[in-house]
Amino acid sequence: MRVDVPLAKAYLLLNHGPVTLVSSRAGERSNLMAASWAMPLDFDPPKVAVVIDRSTLTRELVDASREFALNIPSRALADATLGLGSISGRSRDKWADFRLTAMPADRIGVPLVSECIAWLECRLLDERDVEQRHDLFVAEVVAASADDRVFSGGRWHFDDIALRTIHYVAGGQFFAIGEPVVGRPPDKG
Amino acid sequence: MRVDVPLAKAYLLLNHGPVTLVSSRAGERSNLMAASWAMPLDFDPPKVAVVIDRSTLTRELVDASREFALNIPSRALADATLGLGSISGRSRDKWADFRLTAMPADRIGVPLVSECIAWLECRLLDERDVEQRHDLFVAEVVAASADDRVFSGGRWHFDDIALRTIHYVAGGQFFAIGEPVVGRPPDKG
Repeated sequence: MRVDVPLAKAYLLLNHGPVTLVSSRAGERSNLMAASWAMPLDFDPPKVAVVIDRSTLTRELVDASREFALNIPSRALADATLGLGSISGRSRDKWADFRLTAMPADRIGVPLVSECIAWLECRLLDERDVEQRHDLFVAEVVAASADDRVFSGGRWHFDDIALRTIHYVAGGQFFAIGEPVVGRPPDKG
Repeated sequence: MRVDVPLAKAYLLLNHGPVTLVSSRAGERSNLMAASWAMPLDFDPPKVAVVIDRSTLTRELVDASREFALNIPSRALADATLGLGSISGRSRDKWADFRLTAMPADRIGVPLVSECIAWLECRLLDERDVEQRHDLFVAEVVAASADDRVFSGGRWHFDDIALRTIHYVAGGQFFAIGEPVVGRPPDKG
């Protein structure tokens, strides 16, 4: 079930570096692209940074609406994630091509990918110089939610292997996230 | 053995979202901090974006030298990574505290952490507005290298569990990276 994530915990959805799907909409046009280059930028209010190449349809839609969502796919969506990164939305309806279902967001006019496991709804901050120079977008997270099978009580729990996040490398290859590693805090002495 | 990584492949060291250790030096002072908020920003010449909070000693040193290195720790360094994120370099010599060994970088004046498994040597680009507003630093990667036990031929191979990258969440908890997942490309029909 999709449940709200408190804004102060939104960074946790992205902190461990999963690949994301960027959904966008302007007017009647909507699109999806895969983005590995997304990271948190602040805790509260939560902010993110994401790279959106100037050649993409997503860039055109985000430039127009100043909104986007970061949808986090699980391992079950590895094929779709790869496909979204290799086809342009200018020639195809990527939602239909990859059988992904749009669902309404809470705070923005951009649809979310219902098959994903976590969602960050984002509105661009006014950093047009860095957008132009580096294709780098800085945005505030205005709502966050997650599938409570994998994220609840402010933490990820990846018991179901099919629902683990995936982390892109190159050439069609991802790594699934693996087992928890607990660091031992330093002695205060 | 530490081997060069071609600059056009440097993004691969960071693409899957591992935690990093930021090393810095200005004059006689050198420091280390942990940073999860680092990502690639471009392929060739490779660029990265990293968040360095304005309250840290690292920030002071990076502001002065305009250089830093991103060192990628393996699972064997989980305790040290956690510790580096919880103690300030203003009061302690973190290199000594966590028994980490400095080794010379190839292209910058900042030492690298020899116990890590990959290294990106970075020089800041001139994006002072976004540094000031968001603690966000944009840098060019001027040299990259990796431990050839885990990265060679342009790819990661994490057969040795102790040498896997770690991905920070919160509260002392990381996830180790897991097994490879190969996406199937879409039909071109």
